[in-house]
Amino acid sequence: MPNIVVQNIKRADLSVVDGLAKCGVATVHEAQGRTGLMASNMRPVYTGARIAGTAVTISAAPGDNWMIHVAIEQLREGDMLVLEPTSPCEDGYFGDLLATSAQARGCRGLIINAGVRDVRDLTEMNFPVWSKAVFAQGTVKNTLGSVNVPIVCAGAVVNPGDVIVADDDGVCVVPRQNDADVLEKAQQREANEEEKRQRLASGELGLDMYKMRERLEKEGLKYV
Amino acid sequence: MPNIVVQNIKRADLSVVDGLAKCGVATVHEAQGRTGLMASNMRPVYTGARIAGTAVTISAAPGDNWMIHVAIEQLREGDMLVLEPTSPCEDGYFGDLLATSAQARGCRGLIINAGVRDVRDLTEMNFPVWSKAVFAQGTVKNTLGSVNVPIVCAGAVVNPGDVIVADDDGVCVVPRQNDADVLEKAQQREANEEEKRQRLASGELGLDMYKMRERLEKEGLKYV
Amino acid sequence: MPNIVVQNIKRADLSVVDGLAKCGVATVHEAQGRTGLMASNMRPVYTGARIAGTAVTISAAPGDNWMIHVAIEQLREGDMLVLEPTSPCEDGYFGDLLATSAQARGCRGLIINAGVRDVRDLTEMNFPVWSKAVFAQGTVKNTLGSVNVPIVCAGAVVNPGDVIVADDDGVCVVPRQNDADVLEKAQQREANEEEKRQRLASGELGLDMYKMRERLEKEGLKYV
Amino acid sequence: MPNIVVQNIKRADLSVVDGLAKCGVATVHEAQGRTGLMASNMRPVYTGARIAGTAVTISAAPGDNWMIHVAIEQLREGDMLVLEPTSPCEDGYFGDLLATSAQARGCRGLIINAGVRDVRDLTEMNFPVWSKAVFAQGTVKNTLGSVNVPIVCAGAVVNPGDVIVADDDGVCVVPRQNDADVLEKAQQREANEEEKRQRLASGELGLDMYKMRERLEKEGLKYV
Amino acid sequence: MPNIVVQNIKRADLSVVDGLAKCGVATVHEAQGRTGLMASNMRPVYTGARIAGTAVTISAAPGDNWMIHVAIEQLREGDMLVLEPTSPCEDGYFGDLLATSAQARGCRGLIINAGVRDVRDLTEMNFPVWSKAVFAQGTVKNTLGSVNVPIVCAGAVVNPGDVIVADDDGVCVVPRQNDADVLEKAQQREANEEEKRQRLASGELGLDMYKMRERLEKEGLKYV
Amino acid sequence: MPNIVVQNIKRADLSVVDGLAKCGVATVHEAQGRTGLMASNMRPVYTGARIAGTAVTISAAPGDNWMIHVAIEQLREGDMLVLEPTSPCEDGYFGDLLATSAQARGCRGLIINAGVRDVRDLTEMNFPVWSKAVFAQGTVKNTLGSVNVPIVCAGAVVNPGDVIVADDDGVCVVPRQNDADVLEKAQQREANEEEKRQRLASGELGLDMYKMRERLEKEGLKYV
Repeated sequence: MPNIVVQNIKRADLSVVDGLAKCGVATVHEAQGRTGLMASNMRPVYTGARIAGTAVTISAAPGDNWMIHVAIEQLREGDMLVLEPTSPCEDGYFGDLLATSAQARGCRGLIINAGVRDVRDLTEMNFPVWSKAVFAQGTVKNTLGSVNVPIVCAGAVVNPGDVIVADDDGVCVVPRQNDADVLEKAQQREANEEEKRQRLASGELGLDMYKMRERLEKEGLKYV
Repeated sequence: MPNIVVQNIKRADLSVVDGLAKCGVATVHEAQGRTGLMASNMRPVYTGARIAGTAVTISAAPGDNWMIHVAIEQLREGDMLVLEPTSPCEDGYFGDLLATSAQARGCRGLIINAGVRDVRDLTEMNFPVWSKAVFAQGTVKNTLGSVNVPIVCAGAVVNPGDVIVADDDGVCVVPRQNDADVLEKAQQREANEEEKRQRLASGELGLDMYKMRERLEKEGLKYV
Repeated sequence: MPNIVVQNIKRADLSVVDGLAKCGVATVHEAQGRTGLMASNMRPVYTGARIAGTAVTISAAPGDNWMIHVAIEQLREGDMLVLEPTSPCEDGYFGDLLATSAQARGCRGLIINAGVRDVRDLTEMNFPVWSKAVFAQGTVKNTLGSVNVPIVCAGAVVNPGDVIVADDDGVCVVPRQNDADVLEKAQQREANEEEKRQRLASGELGLDMYKMRERLEKEGLKYV
Repeated sequence: MPNIVVQNIKRADLSVVDGLAKCGVATVHEAQGRTGLMASNMRPVYTGARIAGTAVTISAAPGDNWMIHVAIEQLREGDMLVLEPTSPCEDGYFGDLLATSAQARGCRGLIINAGVRDVRDLTEMNFPVWSKAVFAQGTVKNTLGSVNVPIVCAGAVVNPGDVIVADDDGVCVVPRQNDADVLEKAQQREANEEEKRQRLASGELGLDMYKMRERLEKEGLKYV
Repeated sequence: MPNIVVQNIKRADLSVVDGLAKCGVATVHEAQGRTGLMASNMRPVYTGARIAGTAVTISAAPGDNWMIHVAIEQLREGDMLVLEPTSPCEDGYFGDLLATSAQARGCRGLIINAGVRDVRDLTEMNFPVWSKAVFAQGTVKNTLGSVNVPIVCAGAVVNPGDVIVADDDGVCVVPRQNDADVLEKAQQREANEEEKRQRLASGELGLDMYKMRERLEKEGLKYV
Repeated sequence: MPNIVVQNIKRADLSVVDGLAKCGVATVHEAQGRTGLMASNMRPVYTGARIAGTAVTISAAPGDNWMIHVAIEQLREGDMLVLEPTSPCEDGYFGDLLATSAQARGCRGLIINAGVRDVRDLTEMNFPVWSKAVFAQGTVKNTLGSVNVPIVCAGAVVNPGDVIVADDDGVCVVPRQNDADVLEKAQQREANEEEKRQRLASGELGLDMYKMRERLEKEGLKYV
């Protein structure tokens, strides 16, 4: 397995990326056929952020954050860092210094299937992170990994340049090739939901709005 | 196992329910002899809510939220939805549309031993949820379950109409038959605790207030 | 194993303790050679606290908080309670009454590898707690333990009088014997980091600042 | 919560119990409408046992096995001990001495949502146990619990005298009132399955045997 | 997301597959650069099996095993079933009847990131399974999935026709395109290891055999 | 934190060590006052081994087994390797080659709060291992650690030369200074238990043998 850094990746268009951010994770996940969702233990270090960006991917050894330094050089405005360790690890790969450096290069946030630290600073800096752990444990810089190679992060396939959407519901990956199509479907869902929301708020039942009664009866549901 | 919806359940009296809400989970749990507590992984999606309501129970297939639609029709003012999947699942059964519908029918909140999504919306709507996961993963509407049957939710037995008390400490179930008795005991505990709190705040030791020194010595504790 | 209470322990100096609090967990952990960190599941019940104190240690039976009452008598201004159950337990050993009592005696907070309850009250009281669970489950007072004996808490060795540093990143233990030395190193790190932060914020790369390029090349990293 | 021992419980008939043992957990679980199954982390300490018995239930404090001694007096030929701690615990409540005593009184095995120890001895004695942990950690005898009261064990409701079926697939509870009915359905399933097994072994497809092709097509499955 | 069954997949050559089986998971994993390993909670239901086969992949809804019936029709001699649920689930998707059917069609085993049941029968049938759970909980046949589409199973990417190697150490995926190359490297490793094993067995130290002493000294290791 | 190898450690006497092995973990744990037990997730890779040895301790970086090679040189007849990673890790640090080398130098087994691989080989070689995972994931040799320094392994303090006792019930550490005393108490317990076992086997109740009835009544237990 040679360790490489892919320098010139194709990225999703930021206008599409920003549109997906507005839709949020749950809607985007639905709009692309319920695919691309990361595992539920990927949680934000602070609540309220809803962002999207283009993925700069990192495959790193457990307990070794050397490749984050390498990846930061590859960042462009609108990117997000996405890191998967080569084996399960919850060490604090990332803190306020790396966040300062990433933010200076236009990075919008970090997705890491491991740990982070300095979370008070990250919150104050408004640098959002989704991780599986908060852990002060430090890392070393001894073993190579790769940057901008395809990875599986928290169960989801991420290719460099893919769109990452993240909010309080979790993290979803939209393949770069499908981004415009998914955005269109997501926006349709949103428009569609607004009308439903108003009907439900007025007291109309989902049973009626979705015409479920006949099918429930046919399946054998009994009211007693 | 026929799938049924029980329509006319007996519910605890809301004046008792509201009294229990004020006491909070820890006090109510103590007042009824340390029974009825759900597992500790049932956490609020946002902090600060302290509520109680009468249970409308749902037994649902994993990854299938069809029965929530059915249950919403059964809701009355003061109810809470309580859902246990028939096998462990953390999918996002419930989001802002269902919350809108439930809230429109007087529902005070949701207890779900599974996942929810749209948590930013739920927070803004002031619709409290206690769940074991936040997960954007969607569900289907293909398999029947039951509504208002006895369930075990997160380790606690819940009968339809029972009182559910929930706050930042977790979730506790008070059987409808015992509600007034438990309320009385809970209020006595609260009154009793206030006096203790003042004595402790003034520096009096629990060792003295609870007269523990003799028993500690008898059991063999040595001061060195 | 006789059950004992050690009454006159040596404590770290509070001026050193307070200096360590300012540095925070991640910096202190680094400054003492990456030792003394508790497990990552020790989380604050509310965010934002950054404190340090001297350890009054408690070894307690599972589901039994008797020894906390004993320990409170041993507290002095600037102390923190540190509890490890003798076997894994997540019961709510500690709530608002005990917090009131501990706070009245100058206690700065609680570290407990188990559960706590009344977390809304603890938050309002500004009494910080790091625990592995929030759980309303009550405890009994039937079995002796020990106070101010050496313990292993959440994986870290704690001797009575050691410094405990805790913030949103977790909990770190500094042995009393090393406290001044660790403080000096931590303050040096902080000074050093400030300069790095400014260079990184201006866009300088860690690759250059840390002179990593040659070593990466030597290890075989390829840019493609 | 008074602590009680219920002495004269009604038990399922042992001829029915023995019939259910032969069917095994998966079949019995299906035969009673997929109810009564304990959580999947209840595992046998050794493989190969397939048994059933009548439940003598124990509600015990965490880390306290006093009530097992009390329960053993209540055992009759064909019984099984079923223990749930009042809060999560994995201590080793039970070892070779208690197994010797229980076996001497006709006990067929133990179901415990906690830990056991002396597992080499238990294996040699042919005393089967299903537990969530193997752990040498000892327990005390300081806090009362109850015997032969209704409990929820590993998520399943168990009433005294109910049938417990256990094998390598886990543990299932059959309410005493339904035992004969469930046995009949289970035996029908077994007879029915034998014919299916032979057809499948000969290469016939489930798609054809269960006539699934039309429904798959109707639901929209595409072969490409 | 249309639900599809891909019927004519390309498969790895069985002579290569069988060669990889002999090498075992740890060696194959090393030989392909430490990629393709599934998560460590994928454990065999019985020990001692060491097999390889070509993947027929299944993406299935949680708690729904309909697609296994569909997949069995696609099996050829030498295949293995590989199932990932669309969200985390530990239900018992697979038991002795499905194993009988799969085995009749030449299937060598099952890899499932969920649960199985009838494990005593599976053991007697010599039908090996690697799963994350053993659980008698039944499934339904109501929701479509897909067969022979690319999946991520327990963290590893699996394309239809890829080689699956499984033994007591876990499960590893070898992409079909690389199979011969990986086999060659794996066999070289094995040959190479045999010589090392003999030297180590005779008492020679790894420190000397791998010439580590100089590098350890250079890195700063002190002998005291 | 300088990385060191302590070469001349004091070891417990092997005649005492062998006596402790015969007593087994549960008895030894009791005999030394219920201290020294490792966490319950430390499980044997094969059942049936009951051993004891003197600890050669290893503190290693996550995913890095370099220090095992260093530690093997320090092994003497009767030793056991005891490894704790500096942060949580389940990689396969150890396989058949290292086992061959360790066994050649008189090592009796391995205790590792991480993963191992080649478990089929380890079983055939009769080289027992207690670990928290079996995982084929490989490790690197890039980062220094230390050998024969005090460590906390799976929650238990281990000093070099301490006695490690391990069997199917788990792993227990006996400090070298106490070994003869603990052995004596353990042997007394064993002698004492044999008599109890015979009385219990004859049907005598623990309630009578331990004279519990009066205390149960005094505590308030009611028979109904």
